[in-house]
Amino acid sequence: MRQSEMLVPTLREAPAEADAAGHRWLLRSGMIRQLAAGIYSYLPLGRRILLNVERIVREEMDRAGCQEVLLPIMQPAELWEESGRYTQYGPELMRLKDRHAREFALGPTHEEVVTALARDEVSSYRKLPFTLYQIGTKFRDERRPRFGLLRGREFIMKDAYSFASDWEELDRTYQAMNTAYSRILERCGLDYIRVEADAGTIGGQGETHEFMALADVGEDTIVTCKYCGYAANLEKADYQTSGDIEKKEGSLEVPADSASADSVLQTDQHSGAENVVRISTPGVRTIAELTTFVGKGAEHMIKTLLYVADGQLVAALVRGDRELNDIALKQVLGAEELILADDAAIAAHPNLKVGFLGPIGLNLPMVVDADVAVMKSAITGANELDEHVSGVRPGIDFALERVERIRFAAEGDACPTCGSPLIFTKGIEVGHIFKLGTKYSDAMGASFLDRNGRQCAPVMGCYGIGVSRLMAAIAEQYAGDEGIRWPAAVAPYDVHLITVSWKDEQQRQLTLQLEQQLIDGGYTVLVDDRDERPGVKFKDAELIGLPVQIVIGRGAAEGQVELGSHALAASGESKRIGLTAQEAVLYVKEQLTS
Amino acid sequence: MRQSEMLVPTLREAPAEADAAGHRWLLRSGMIRQLAAGIYSYLPLGRRILLNVERIVREEMDRAGCQEVLLPIMQPAELWEESGRYTQYGPELMRLKDRHAREFALGPTHEEVVTALARDEVSSYRKLPFTLYQIGTKFRDERRPRFGLLRGREFIMKDAYSFASDWEELDRTYQAMNTAYSRILERCGLDYIRVEADAGTIGGQGETHEFMALADVGEDTIVTCKYCGYAANLEKADYQTSGDIEKKEGSLEVPADSASADSVLQTDQHSGAENVVRISTPGVRTIAELTTFVGKGAEHMIKTLLYVADGQLVAALVRGDRELNDIALKQVLGAEELILADDAAIAAHPNLKVGFLGPIGLNLPMVVDADVAVMKSAITGANELDEHVSGVRPGIDFALERVERIRFAAEGDACPTCGSPLIFTKGIEVGHIFKLGTKYSDAMGASFLDRNGRQCAPVMGCYGIGVSRLMAAIAEQYAGDEGIRWPAAVAPYDVHLITVSWKDEQQRQLTLQLEQQLIDGGYTVLVDDRDERPGVKFKDAELIGLPVQIVIGRGAAEGQVELGSHALAASGESKRIGLTAQEAVLYVKEQLTS
Repeated sequence: MRQSEMLVPTLREAPAEADAAGHRWLLRSGMIRQLAAGIYSYLPLGRRILLNVERIVREEMDRAGCQEVLLPIMQPAELWEESGRYTQYGPELMRLKDRHAREFALGPTHEEVVTALARDEVSSYRKLPFTLYQIGTKFRDERRPRFGLLRGREFIMKDAYSFASDWEELDRTYQAMNTAYSRILERCGLDYIRVEADAGTIGGQGETHEFMALADVGEDTIVTCKYCGYAANLEKADYQTSGDIEKKEGSLEVPADSASADSVLQTDQHSGAENVVRISTPGVRTIAELTTFVGKGAEHMIKTLLYVADGQLVAALVRGDRELNDIALKQVLGAEELILADDAAIAAHPNLKVGFLGPIGLNLPMVVDADVAVMKSAITGANELDEHVSGVRPGIDFALERVERIRFAAEGDACPTCGSPLIFTKGIEVGHIFKLGTKYSDAMGASFLDRNGRQCAPVMGCYGIGVSRLMAAIAEQYAGDEGIRWPAAVAPYDVHLITVSWKDEQQRQLTLQLEQQLIDGGYTVLVDDRDERPGVKFKDAELIGLPVQIVIGRGAAEGQVELGSHALAASGESKRIGLTAQEAVLYVKEQLTS
Repeated sequence: MRQSEMLVPTLREAPAEADAAGHRWLLRSGMIRQLAAGIYSYLPLGRRILLNVERIVREEMDRAGCQEVLLPIMQPAELWEESGRYTQYGPELMRLKDRHAREFALGPTHEEVVTALARDEVSSYRKLPFTLYQIGTKFRDERRPRFGLLRGREFIMKDAYSFASDWEELDRTYQAMNTAYSRILERCGLDYIRVEADAGTIGGQGETHEFMALADVGEDTIVTCKYCGYAANLEKADYQTSGDIEKKEGSLEVPADSASADSVLQTDQHSGAENVVRISTPGVRTIAELTTFVGKGAEHMIKTLLYVADGQLVAALVRGDRELNDIALKQVLGAEELILADDAAIAAHPNLKVGFLGPIGLNLPMVVDADVAVMKSAITGANELDEHVSGVRPGIDFALERVERIRFAAEGDACPTCGSPLIFTKGIEVGHIFKLGTKYSDAMGASFLDRNGRQCAPVMGCYGIGVSRLMAAIAEQYAGDEGIRWPAAVAPYDVHLITVSWKDEQQRQLTLQLEQQLIDGGYTVLVDDRDERPGVKFKDAELIGLPVQIVIGRGAAEGQVELGSHALAASGESKRIGLTAQEAVLYVKEQLTS
């Protein structure tokens, strides 16, 4: 391909929108352009990378025995109502009406469509198991699209759905997909880790794992143990804590006198707590401010957080240096909906002083984190404006109605498996595999007759891999100082022939000869035949970042070419090396044979 | 691939929705399923066909020097407002709002996105010419989706856009695309014709051609001359007519006394027309009824049609046996908008008697078709309820203010090029190439500096090919009595191995041996390993319609296989032929080497 004929609008500066290294280089190398927030055009070089990733994904899905399909983007709202997700999905689901005012969703995933298909077409165990997959465009109206292709509103995804007669069959498919996903990420050259995960909006009844590409811009926190190999998403990560031994489950009844707005605080709130010392803390509302003010670490404090669980106000206590896990709290409460209490919810109780809340005298259902329950003496809010209290003894100065593990793991916590200290890293979720079980088949009435003529619900799995996100994750991991050095498996071309002066007959002829030899050898070649200064050409070549760069310059008169800087950097040589065209072809073969 | 592991839900009967032969077979062979009106899922076999068509399209686009991109489906409404198409496109444009209430269109084509891209990224003639293409999902909210994949609301299309410095450069790209389109259709095995076309909603300033696959269900009428090769879409077709010699252009002023509602009819409407004879025609309102009533052909009658052109009522006269061409009328009137007058528009003039309209005394701007102008004596409405008039002489009994060619060509008309009789056939528009000129670059302010430093608008072309529609057109042309016989280039697999009894060790072994030999030979193979009766297997094989069918049955004991019915039909043999596995492989090679 001649670069002069290609649309490769490289930029000297990254646009202001660029908020991650890989994203900056994708923009600067003219591979993608933003059309609207979270919506991108793939220009020719970017499209080639995406096609390469798609090809790898397709090959591995086919190898795993999956069948490719193509399901519609526009999905009737009725299907989503059957599964219950039409309301549950919230504003992230893109919706539209057709000319007959019929409602549709733009598919973020295809559980509904594929379950309806199985319901209509599969009635016997003899048709099971099977797995369908597709590669296509998905939509999710992210509240905050960012990092370019990493979190977009329109993106390319491979999604797969398996149908099995029973859980054992599902297990086998799950393992096959697990292997396929590992192969895909390895072929893409990604540094990744597989972690235990939470099922989120997709839901499901069985285990679920995420594949995380390691990167500082990753929005997920990965919790790992380097001794035993334990790995989980922070949302799901387990840990051992001294609080475990004191874990206590109690009733969580609404206190009897909570009917009036003021009754959330007991009037004799400090009764019998002679050890409790009041501290005047004017304007000190956060844990960070409090640690500074009293000169003690956050591990000595108790945070009192208010939530609304299915319309009812509840309090949750965690240690000052810990983060509350709202998914865990929701499960503990058995709540359908759990939201952090907002100003309006709190305003109904004028006695609640936000920033100065504490458990003593608080007349609300209260869940106490296990770590709090074992504290000997704590500092917390006094339930009075500008006042805190110290010397508070959980279980003595306030009751431990219900003790649960409601915090996230923290760095240094003991590994749940081996007790070694847990380590935190950042990751990009590039793949996710779920055992859905019969959640969708039950909801949508899909069934089949088993070997014994009994009607059963197919046991489903679903498996997603972000194709455009994979491209973005590779960009992040391979971002260097001058551009992205694309791994050979996904690079838009194998070799960049940079001809210093295309007008020079000898340089042009040598370039064409080399190009033909490389094409005959099965390589893809980009030729910089532009009428540009050498500096511009080298700079653009760094931006484009093909695996091998060969410079055809003045040495062409003697049939000599030089290796470009990527190749040089890889070989550790400090200056360009003169090679014959023949040697250059051999060099390419060496470099690109893995 | 094992058929037992594949989702191929064949049907004994076609669903009621199926309204074309190819569509019925696509449904019955389990290749596609409807999710909503005009919205289809591609099941595994159908997806393979679509991928094959995509591959052919991609290869030919690459060969023509085009660069693949991927542009967003969701397009900001602002872009469509810039081009003026946001309102112009009407209800066929799918629209939605995101969570911030920002409006988007779901792309039916991408002129706006690609022109905005060129505006932002291309500023010099040195970057021109180039052509971008993409293969992806498009949306068009058809009022009446039908014929399955032929006219859907969500469909797969290849669209391409070229940018050139001038019209000569555009001409070269246009010719290259013309060649590429012919190659694509030939490789897909389609019987097609290239015709002159009308630009429709896309608009444009230059020539435009359509590629039509011939098929009875085609919604387009193709006008051809088999002597000189002239070919055009009926919308665009020219013709020679005796009326041409009398063609006359006059002014089309609104009559001076037309201000009042009743003035559209002159009071002395039959003055001086002693040749005119009134006929009582109670309840006779259509040309068909009138021909029966008076016993004369429609060629003796004048149809008087009322239109509203930019808010003004106008009359158009065509011969009873001709169809008015509203695009031609619109051009003649220089109108922005032209719609057939509805009841409301006519109700404003209570003297107008629909079904009995005629030119005599009609006080409206009137365009007379050239064929009407040369009639010697005609029958037409009397402008009185239940009355017509005969003996009407155009130009004598009513004035020929403006004579124009405002009818469509008719079968048997003289070819515009050679005068031979024109023939009508039906076609499916599978491709369309346009010379857009600077319509979009002007509207959206895209420009570049030419060789002389002058600011110029890039000259654009656009080129669409319906990928899913190609699949549907192939289905129509290759539909037989038992299914579709897919041409080898797009068939989901090359060879169908039908094993009569998979439980039979000899049959199974011979099948596996044959499968391996064929795979080694580079062929794709589908093995019917299901536990089904032979009749079911043969029936399904006919439905699936792979190019070569080989039956492995009782002959397996002697190492013999038989050719399936497709192969037999092709060879003209009346019964199955016994072949060794080796001979069968050679037979496959013969059949699939083209």
